[in-house]
Amino acid sequence: MIEDKNQSRTPISELGEFGLIDHLTKHFEVTQKSTIKSIGDDAAVLDFKSKQVVITTDLLVEHVHFDLSYMPLKHLGYKAMIANLSDVYAMNANATQVTIGIAISNRFPLEALEELYAGIETASKIYGVDVVGGDTTSSTTGLIISITAVGEVNKNDVVYRSGAKPNDLLVVTGDLGAAYMGLQILEREKEVFKVNPNNQPDLEPYTYIVERQLKPEARKDIVKLLKDLKVKPTSMIDISDGLSSEIIHLCKQSEVGAVLYENKIPLDPQVISTCEEFNIDSTTIALNGGEDYELLMTISQEDFPKIKGNPNLTVIGYMTEKDQGMHLITRSEALIPLIAKGWNALKDQ
Amino acid sequence: MIEDKNQSRTPISELGEFGLIDHLTKHFEVTQKSTIKSIGDDAAVLDFKSKQVVITTDLLVEHVHFDLSYMPLKHLGYKAMIANLSDVYAMNANATQVTIGIAISNRFPLEALEELYAGIETASKIYGVDVVGGDTTSSTTGLIISITAVGEVNKNDVVYRSGAKPNDLLVVTGDLGAAYMGLQILEREKEVFKVNPNNQPDLEPYTYIVERQLKPEARKDIVKLLKDLKVKPTSMIDISDGLSSEIIHLCKQSEVGAVLYENKIPLDPQVISTCEEFNIDSTTIALNGGEDYELLMTISQEDFPKIKGNPNLTVIGYMTEKDQGMHLITRSEALIPLIAKGWNALKDQ
Repeated sequence: MIEDKNQSRTPISELGEFGLIDHLTKHFEVTQKSTIKSIGDDAAVLDFKSKQVVITTDLLVEHVHFDLSYMPLKHLGYKAMIANLSDVYAMNANATQVTIGIAISNRFPLEALEELYAGIETASKIYGVDVVGGDTTSSTTGLIISITAVGEVNKNDVVYRSGAKPNDLLVVTGDLGAAYMGLQILEREKEVFKVNPNNQPDLEPYTYIVERQLKPEARKDIVKLLKDLKVKPTSMIDISDGLSSEIIHLCKQSEVGAVLYENKIPLDPQVISTCEEFNIDSTTIALNGGEDYELLMTISQEDFPKIKGNPNLTVIGYMTEKDQGMHLITRSEALIPLIAKGWNALKDQ
Repeated sequence: MIEDKNQSRTPISELGEFGLIDHLTKHFEVTQKSTIKSIGDDAAVLDFKSKQVVITTDLLVEHVHFDLSYMPLKHLGYKAMIANLSDVYAMNANATQVTIGIAISNRFPLEALEELYAGIETASKIYGVDVVGGDTTSSTTGLIISITAVGEVNKNDVVYRSGAKPNDLLVVTGDLGAAYMGLQILEREKEVFKVNPNNQPDLEPYTYIVERQLKPEARKDIVKLLKDLKVKPTSMIDISDGLSSEIIHLCKQSEVGAVLYENKIPLDPQVISTCEEFNIDSTTIALNGGEDYELLMTISQEDFPKIKGNPNLTVIGYMTEKDQGMHLITRSEALIPLIAKGWNALKDQ
């Protein structure tokens, strides 16, 4: 476990609840104009003027969402932030503040909590988000992280899941399946480590996919890019549970169908080679692997010239009338119904 | 355990994550004008026009903050809401929305989660707050509830902890110590039950204090009352960790001292009689017992005529220069320094 590597171990109880929050957040700077009052009162005070506010919340639970045997606490703090910020960007909004709730058992020393907060702080700096509230408490067993992210958006810029129209283009950012394959590599190395603790894993051929699992990024850049390109998607969602599941969400909420082309799905060469190594189908991984934190959107056909050739955006299909259903067209031109087999925290238990 | 009393037991996994949130929140109505889009997208969308926004977050952990052997799940859901709403009212703001994160182990059937949500829904109706977001996931052991509450307030109405001035009056709402004494009764009955499960506890003499523990209320009414009275407190905080601890917070953040009169502290007769029964000092309980969710505020002396005689507001002392320190003046006119011995989730473990 990561906490055993720490040289110094200060019991969390030494600081008490108030001392602890002060200690963990003292380096945190406020950078957003909308943050009027940050940590230190009964509540934070924010002022968004005429802008609308988006808010989203996520819980991450040890042994369910993460495994500390290969996830360093600093990375975990960073990733927990990313998972939430991604939801804000999926509304075409700018993330501005977060509140953090952490329940931690006393097997963790203060230094472990500092590592976790270091990851949170790094993400807050890189993404320009203020940490304005927190609650840190003890847990009887594992580690639980709850993050609520807040963002701001001009009223006319909000993009919902429900605005897709037939003939809109289906567009995805980045590439898919890498985070899932990175997890497969880490789990394999964990098993190897159990058998032979002296074995040093060679992760060199898997750098990209392991990084996508351990240190994912949220697509803040896409919100800016779309603004610069003067493209407002008709619908948008972030890809946290696999492409297939997210397409189905857009279709259901927009009351449309969709056609997805297998040969258009963007895959990194490392995903393809690792899938070959594991003897699994890379399309299945792209469709059902989670935690990519890319954005899936639909855009009007008339906006196509604006995005054409942009390396960040790939057209992977188009929307249809609802009664045409949701299908994948394979490389061999077979028509396969899309189903959601995405990672599901509840079913997996 | 409360879940064992349920006649029907539907495994949570039957619904899956999305089905579960839909199922639990389908009755929830949106009543706030500021709620533009509630549950069902990557994030909720809110519009506060020219108002400022307050946001606060809390984590409640089983075996740390609550014990399901005497806390019914419906009450727990209600109380979790109250704890957060109270922080919003302490900013002199109107609570408008909450997001809910719940991690639950599979020892709980769906019916238990429905009970918990029923309590959340009841509070949301009574306090007029929209549940706009949620995340429900599995936990490897106990139950964890994370609530983030959002409120709105006119820019000039926000009250911080930091505005108290020397000579301001120290004012408290309601009465103190009841929730803590209610807990003592419930813990005593739990021990009796362990020895003799057929024993039916007679809680009749303790109705008020047990209710203050199991079904506390937040002082939404006080925010309205202060507005009606045209009184803007110079500082305010909610009393969740005991009067003493909260006075110290106000003093530190306002850089003032305080004098508190023991004989002015409002106590319910049931608190006094139960303290006598347990042979403990009722002032100690009022100073250090937690979970009252009353409001502690300071007001300018010139506002005194406006609050004089109001049954909801009791003047219990006044603020001094910082160098005069923080003291309790006892009934025998002894001067005792105030110290925080309030309930502390981290130290107690």
